[in-house]
Parts: sequence; C-alpha cells; structure tokens
Amino acid sequence: MRNLDEDNITRAVIGMHAQAGNVRLRELMTSLVQHLHAFARETALTEEEWFQGIRFLTEVGHITTGTRQEFILLSDTLGLSMLVTALNHKKPEGCTESTVFGPFHVEDSPRVELGGDVANGAQGEPCFVCGTVAGLDGRPVPHAELQVWQADEAGYYDVQYGEDVPHRARATLNADAEGNFHFKTIRAEAYPIPHDGPVGRMLEALGRHPWRPAHLHFMITAPGYERLITHVFRNGDRYLDSDAVFGVRSSLIADWVEHPRGAAPDGTHSEVPFYTLAFRFVLNPDGA
Amino acid sequence: MRNLDEDNITRAVIGMHAQAGNVRLRELMTSLVQHLHAFARETALTEEEWFQGIRFLTEVGHITTGTRQEFILLSDTLGLSMLVTALNHKKPEGCTESTVFGPFHVEDSPRVELGGDVANGAQGEPCFVCGTVAGLDGRPVPHAELQVWQADEAGYYDVQYGEDVPHRARATLNADAEGNFHFKTIRAEAYPIPHDGPVGRMLEALGRHPWRPAHLHFMITAPGYERLITHVFRNGDRYLDSDAVFGVRSSLIADWVEHPRGAAPDGTHSEVPFYTLAFRFVLNPDGA
Ligand SMILES: [Fe+2]
Ligand SMILES: [Fe+2]
Repeated sequence: MRNLDEDNITRAVIGMHAQAGNVRLRELMTSLVQHLHAFARETALTEEEWFQGIRFLTEVGHITTGTRQEFILLSDTLGLSMLVTALNHKKPEGCTESTVFGPFHVEDSPRVELGGDVANGAQGEPCFVCGTVAGLDGRPVPHAELQVWQADEAGYYDVQYGEDVPHRARATLNADAEGNFHFKTIRAEAYPIPHDGPVGRMLEALGRHPWRPAHLHFMITAPGYERLITHVFRNGDRYLDSDAVFGVRSSLIADWVEHPRGAAPDGTHSEVPFYTLAFRFVLNPDGA
Repeated sequence: MRNLDEDNITRAVIGMHAQAGNVRLRELMTSLVQHLHAFARETALTEEEWFQGIRFLTEVGHITTGTRQEFILLSDTLGLSMLVTALNHKKPEGCTESTVFGPFHVEDSPRVELGGDVANGAQGEPCFVCGTVAGLDGRPVPHAELQVWQADEAGYYDVQYGEDVPHRARATLNADAEGNFHFKTIRAEAYPIPHDGPVGRMLEALGRHPWRPAHLHFMITAPGYERLITHVFRNGDRYLDSDAVFGVRSSLIADWVEHPRGAAPDGTHSEVPFYTLAFRFVLNPDGA
C-alpha cells in the first residue's frame, strides 16, 4: 500500500474489498475495478482525457432530473442496456423477445377499456392496434395486463412536455378472457432520443445520429409468466438498421398497414387515412 | 443490427463508431465499450443491479457542485486517479514521485513571501516547513513556484467551509535563487474524504474507511521541468497503509519533528510546542 504503481494498484484496490460483507457486491466491484483499470492501462489514458471524462459524467448528472435520465440514455447508446436485457431474458424459441425498457415509462398510466383511446389527445395519424397474448403452448393468456406507451407525431413522449401535461399516448389495459386486446391510438413515429445534452454531444463526436426507428412500447404481465418488456417496430422505417440504442430484433418488426379513409375497425367512418397493426405476443411461462 | 444478442452487440456498438473523425476518441470508446460490456457479461449483471448503478451515478452527479466533486472522489477511491497519475508520470529514478491531485486545489491561492504565513487563520499546531527544489542533476532550481495546500486540524480544507470563507492553509510562493524555500503553517492532519454522500455509502458497503493519512499537497513548476504534483505524508500516521485513495509512496513520507515550546525557526519564541518539516524535491527535466 505504500508503493502502488500501475502494475500492482489493481490488486491493492480489490484487496481493500476483501472484508465487504456483501459477497455479490464484492464480486461486482472486483470485476468493475479490473475493467476500469484495464481501460486506463490499455488506452494509456492521459490526465486531460481523465478530466474530460469527469466533466462529461458531471454534465450527465446535472442534466438528469425526475423526467430526464441521461445516465440511462448513456447506457442505452453504449449498448449496455440492450446487453443487460439480453443477459436477463434468455427465453425458449417461440417466445416474444425482450428489448430495452427506455427512460419514458411511467408507473401510473391511465387505465382504458378494451377498444378505448390510448392517444388521449396526443397528435398523430389514427392507428388501430389489435392482438393476442398467448403462452408458449399456444394457449391464450386470459386478462393479461398490457401497458403501452409511445411518442407522438412530433417524436415526443408526454413526459417530455413537462410535468403539467396529462398522460397521453400511454395506457394500461387488460386483454379479454381469450387473451385478445384492441385499442385506438396514433401511429408510432421515429424519434431522436434527447440529444441536446452531453449524450447528444457524444453521439455527434462519434459520427452517430440519435434516431430510433418508430416503435410502440409494451409491458405485459400475467400470473405464471415472465414479465415481457418489449417494443413492436414499424416495418420499413429507415432507422431499423441503425437504432441509436441497439434495440431492434427482426421478430419484433411488424407492418403498420395503411388504409384509405372510410370504414374503420371500431365501426366508425374515418375522414382521414388510418393505420392498423396486429401483433401476437407469446409469454414465457415462469420457470421455463 | 436487427438481431443483436449478448455475443454480437459489442462488435455492433464499436462498429457504429467506425466513422468517428477523431481517431483517439474512437480508440477510447472501443476500449471503454469492450470493458463495460465485459463487466456486464462476466458478472451476469441483473436489471436491478444495473438500475442501482444508474441511481448511484445519478446521486453522484446530483451531489457534485463547484466545490464538491463526487466523481473525482469516486475515481480516487477506486484507484483510477492514482493509476492515471502513475501512467502519466513515469520518471527517472531519483525524481520526486507524483501522487493524486485530489479535489481541493484552487487556481488562485494567496501569494506569500518566503518565510510567510500559509495558515492565514486556519487552526492547527504550528509547523515550520523548509526545503529545496533541485533538478535530477542535483543543481538547485532557482525561483521554482510552489503551490501548497492542506487540511486544518479539524480535517477540512478551506473550500469545504463554503464559498464565503477566505483562502486558508493554502498559498503560492517562490523558492529563492538557490532553490530554497521556507514557510510557516499548521501541522497536516489525517482527514476523512467527504463521506456523507454516495461515495461514502459505497465505502461503508465495502467495509472501507474514508481516511487519508496526514499530508501536505505541493504543486511545483519551473521552466524546463515537468510539473510536479505530489504530497508529503506524515511519518507514523495510522492510515499510511490504508489511504482511502491509494496515494501513499514510501519516498514521500517524511518526519514532522516535534519541538518543545521555545525558540522557533523564524526567530520568535513559541509559547506552544511546534513542528518542523524539511523536504527536498527533485524535478524531472523536460524531455527526460
Ligand atoms: Fe421509445
Ligand atoms: Fe488532501
């Protein structure tokens, strides 16, 4: 401890944690310190670069509020969030794949009835969504709870408009006894992740764009099944091969079918063209 | 990009940076992403652990202000700061070794004359410091500029008392034509790094104490020499073998010699016991 140098300091730091009561914490910190130090050694990190890193993290912290989580954006854009999702949701073939949670979920989204209006005033082209929730054995999952959330046509989630805006383009609903659900909403649109902060500057410095392909978020829960957090991505979107947060999976891409104005799925007459989307979710039984 | 999993996502993220104009940034991000992902894979990081990490970093960001830099504390306590110091200051044998900069340096410390009072009202036992600044060839470095800073007897730096407190126990002075310097100050004391925030909680969870052994900070600059940022540590301190930031080097430990009250080095009569410290700094010539 009195003569630590670039070769022995890593062992010394890890050694300081030998007394930690929490074995898992010790395991995490051992790996973290090894990789943090290996990064500095491998790159021969300069003091100025180290300080740029300190300043960057400080800015990420200072822009983060209750409604803007820049550290999650950072994790998302470095692929860490998607990696953690993949590590924690290895499922049998046939189950709907998981993808990133993202920073825009809220706990208390409005409850709507089947067939109800999820948009709640959010602007966008009308879209009718229907689908089913089934288990891996093909049987319907009755009354599964679905939370759905999405951006509006301007590319913003409700929470990005400030705390005074009511919840829009997000809802909680339950499938029926046969696992079927349907609701009305607006068409999902591609949007850039918030890029007016340090993560946006990082992307720019890296020659990367901040866009995500159009998608609709789902969180589906039912007793006896692993909770499913995923998106449905819009087929044909130009960002499907360059999602800023690496969340696309082929099995999650679906068609938003365009229809001319006229008879809509809810029995009304639509004065404007509208879209329909159908998707079948397959849940992973607990313990599978 | 449409089917990234735990095995191929790292390559995909790195591939996204292939167009970055800044080659060094690309090099840094490649190593960073590889190690960040390897950490998650090796530890099979859970989503809850990932989120605890997000929350921890958010707290580190939120407690950080102009006068409290919790990210530097985090880097210091994980040994990263000392590693970066070691990587960037490999010097010929015989030069004074560098150690961590720490978060308590300020740019505009008060200028004092040789023999002047650095304490400026900071509380502590009187201490008379003298020394020389020489080059690796043994020749004195005339008029080298020294910045010195330290904690008071309560273990606090002036900046920790708030922005209204004048600079105390820190100063800028110049050695004389023969490289000699001397000043009056207070005895350096061991102190805990600020541990009422997330880094303090991390140390506690790891079974670590937050203390640093007593030390006096020096930053010494002179034309033709590598800038020296270092400490002198007080011999006998109980924390020399467990410095919370891993900064101790044997060559930087020196004796604070205790003297009974009586004639002091500055020609006055001290009514209380006092200490003396002498240290010889050897600078690394530019290009060595
Ligand atoms: Fe989203
Ligand atoms: Fe210090």
